[in-house]
Amino acid sequence: MTMKRNRKPPPRNALYAQSGGVTAVINATACGVIEACRKHRDRIGRLYAGRDGIVGALTEDLIDVGREDAATVRALRHTPSGAFGSARYKLKDLDRDRAKYERLIEVFRAHDIGYFFYNGGNDSMDTALKLSQLGEQMGHHVACIGIPKTVDNDLPVTDCCPGFGSVAKYVAVSTLEASLDVASMARTSTKVFILEVMGRHAGWIAAAGGLAARKAGDPPHIILFPEIAFDRQRFLTRVRETVERKSYCVIVASEGTRDAEGRFLSDMGTRDAFGHVQLGGVAPTLAGMIKDALGYKYHWALADYLQRSARHIASRVDVEQAYAVGRAAVELAVSGMNAVMPVIVRKSSKPYRWSIGSVSIAAVANREKMVPRNYITADGFGITAACRRYLEPLIGGEDYPPYKGGIPAYATLRGARVRRRLKTPFVI
Amino acid sequence: MTMKRNRKPPPRNALYAQSGGVTAVINATACGVIEACRKHRDRIGRLYAGRDGIVGALTEDLIDVGREDAATVRALRHTPSGAFGSARYKLKDLDRDRAKYERLIEVFRAHDIGYFFYNGGNDSMDTALKLSQLGEQMGHHVACIGIPKTVDNDLPVTDCCPGFGSVAKYVAVSTLEASLDVASMARTSTKVFILEVMGRHAGWIAAAGGLAARKAGDPPHIILFPEIAFDRQRFLTRVRETVERKSYCVIVASEGTRDAEGRFLSDMGTRDAFGHVQLGGVAPTLAGMIKDALGYKYHWALADYLQRSARHIASRVDVEQAYAVGRAAVELAVSGMNAVMPVIVRKSSKPYRWSIGSVSIAAVANREKMVPRNYITADGFGITAACRRYLEPLIGGEDYPPYKGGIPAYATLRGARVRRRLKTPFVI
Repeated sequence: MTMKRNRKPPPRNALYAQSGGVTAVINATACGVIEACRKHRDRIGRLYAGRDGIVGALTEDLIDVGREDAATVRALRHTPSGAFGSARYKLKDLDRDRAKYERLIEVFRAHDIGYFFYNGGNDSMDTALKLSQLGEQMGHHVACIGIPKTVDNDLPVTDCCPGFGSVAKYVAVSTLEASLDVASMARTSTKVFILEVMGRHAGWIAAAGGLAARKAGDPPHIILFPEIAFDRQRFLTRVRETVERKSYCVIVASEGTRDAEGRFLSDMGTRDAFGHVQLGGVAPTLAGMIKDALGYKYHWALADYLQRSARHIASRVDVEQAYAVGRAAVELAVSGMNAVMPVIVRKSSKPYRWSIGSVSIAAVANREKMVPRNYITADGFGITAACRRYLEPLIGGEDYPPYKGGIPAYATLRGARVRRRLKTPFVI
Repeated sequence: MTMKRNRKPPPRNALYAQSGGVTAVINATACGVIEACRKHRDRIGRLYAGRDGIVGALTEDLIDVGREDAATVRALRHTPSGAFGSARYKLKDLDRDRAKYERLIEVFRAHDIGYFFYNGGNDSMDTALKLSQLGEQMGHHVACIGIPKTVDNDLPVTDCCPGFGSVAKYVAVSTLEASLDVASMARTSTKVFILEVMGRHAGWIAAAGGLAARKAGDPPHIILFPEIAFDRQRFLTRVRETVERKSYCVIVASEGTRDAEGRFLSDMGTRDAFGHVQLGGVAPTLAGMIKDALGYKYHWALADYLQRSARHIASRVDVEQAYAVGRAAVELAVSGMNAVMPVIVRKSSKPYRWSIGSVSIAAVANREKMVPRNYITADGFGITAACRRYLEPLIGGEDYPPYKGGIPAYATLRGARVRRRLKTPFVI
């Protein structure tokens, strides 16, 4: 028997995992990863996914992505949330969580995982970096590629984060629509409307509410950013002036709105009849202030998960970028890169042109990008022209899912389990 | 000089007014009224609209609809909220509010209003009926035509109410999307999600959340209707069982949820740190109960005005019906009818076929249509197949507005004021 020597290394398997809060387009990234892997069968053997993200990787609960047909994979592009399951499960320092990192490398070794695609935010990039390093130490080389995802838009280096454009579009459209509602009835009904949006640390999502305005003076009249210290008196004065001038006032408030001492308004403690603290609720807190001080009739909305899962009104730009970073991650991996993350590079704003670049994960991990001061008007209540120039392209275009029976036809995966190879279980 | 005798009466002017809470499609009705009036110039002279509804009629603040160009009128079809302004301004009995009714007839007489189109819910139908009667008494004949509009879907006789189909679609789509979000993260994050929806008296909007389910067992797992007395213990047991079986629980709760004594959950009094009562909030009240009794991590959303203004995800059937009742109202008027309202008649559910009929306003005024018991499952927590058969056609089809710069291009009216003819002002 003679043996031919392969010049190319044999294909190795890949693992994809979703991490942290899900978005309207993280599955479009999954679609990009899967379709790109299928084009590189010479380099990438089987593609697995962690069920519930890193938790599935730790417990060796892996999904065999190869069992999903092409039509289902394609439908992921228009399906919100994390189709493979995601997790809020932060791995701490190597010192404190070494057993978990080592377990992950063991699982990788058992399934010949040579590529790890981790689709998440700052924390996930940190995990991917550590895994890449520990793999080398433990003699199991694994290319760890981060893929950006966060509605908060707070990752550095990349011009924007997949997931943000769609929540921004949802918030801009909802602010516009609710403003028309309030305006049309203000004479005899509600004078003040408050929309509370996500963004505990960075005010990008709140800023997107500003895109509802076509011209100066249009609603929203007040935006509250985590970056600007909340001042009760200045806020109430502005509300009163706005109602007196416009007959109504529309406010977009970040859940991260806080005072000069850094105390979140949402923690200022509404209590129910039994004295229990009610968590959440910048909007009702503001509404209470307005009612007490000014007596205006108010309404408020809290979009919560609706905003980040609203695939029905996704930004086409966002969907395209989400898909593109997924595909690029695979290209980076097969070209031999490690511990990198694809990023979105803005080439021009008008017309909007972008491309995909890459950055070392080390430059991204555990860093947050806040809304810069020059994106917020001097009075702290609005967005500037520079901010609008940055934001507007990100909500550009629509990308409607198909409908059946009046509701979107979202994909459901088969989710076939990969046979376990390790004897030891791992308890989360 | 000789005079020819006209066989046809000379054209008389018409007044259109929007009333009560606005919807995603009330302007589509306005579009239908305006376009139909323009086809009947031999019978209908000028078309005016009350600015802010009946308030504009009382104060003689009328908009000259003839000054709006055809493209703007066409764009009303895809514009949410009340473009002419609406009002929460209920006229009481003739005995108590006679001066207001008489003032309206005076305004009608001054502007030769021979047709009054009143676009609203139960209360508005009552007003239209009284005006029709008082006009005869005061020697000013005016054909008063009611046009149905209410997201609450609680008008009798008509199979459904324009405005409802779109809020139903919004709630069904949002419930589906948020459910996918919760499902994908339940292992390590939120276990219970609550969406609070409108419908203070009737549970039609809450029922629409049930359309998110494609098959038995799909979310939402619990729907709370105003029609079913809330029982804390039964509710908590069902939440616990659902989380244990499915790993998460999605709840759609009507703002009108109340206990066996008829007390609204939203009135059970959450208080802020200063002891002030916080109004609104079935969702946070339920969330507090669940946290206390079961300890599950929860999230909740309150869609408020977003749901009724969400033209971006309007039901195509709803838009078509809203337009059709507007056009039909004009046809009824010019055919000599008075004190009637066009209604939607269902001819079949599968395939869905409907036509426009009419009913005497007297049969509609001040009556409410609740969700019938056979539309709610025996356990009180879901919708039956009969309910689904009724609801599903109403959210059928999409009717997307045009977009510009990432947000919908909604119409703005010129809103030119008609010159006043009365000397006496009227103070609201």
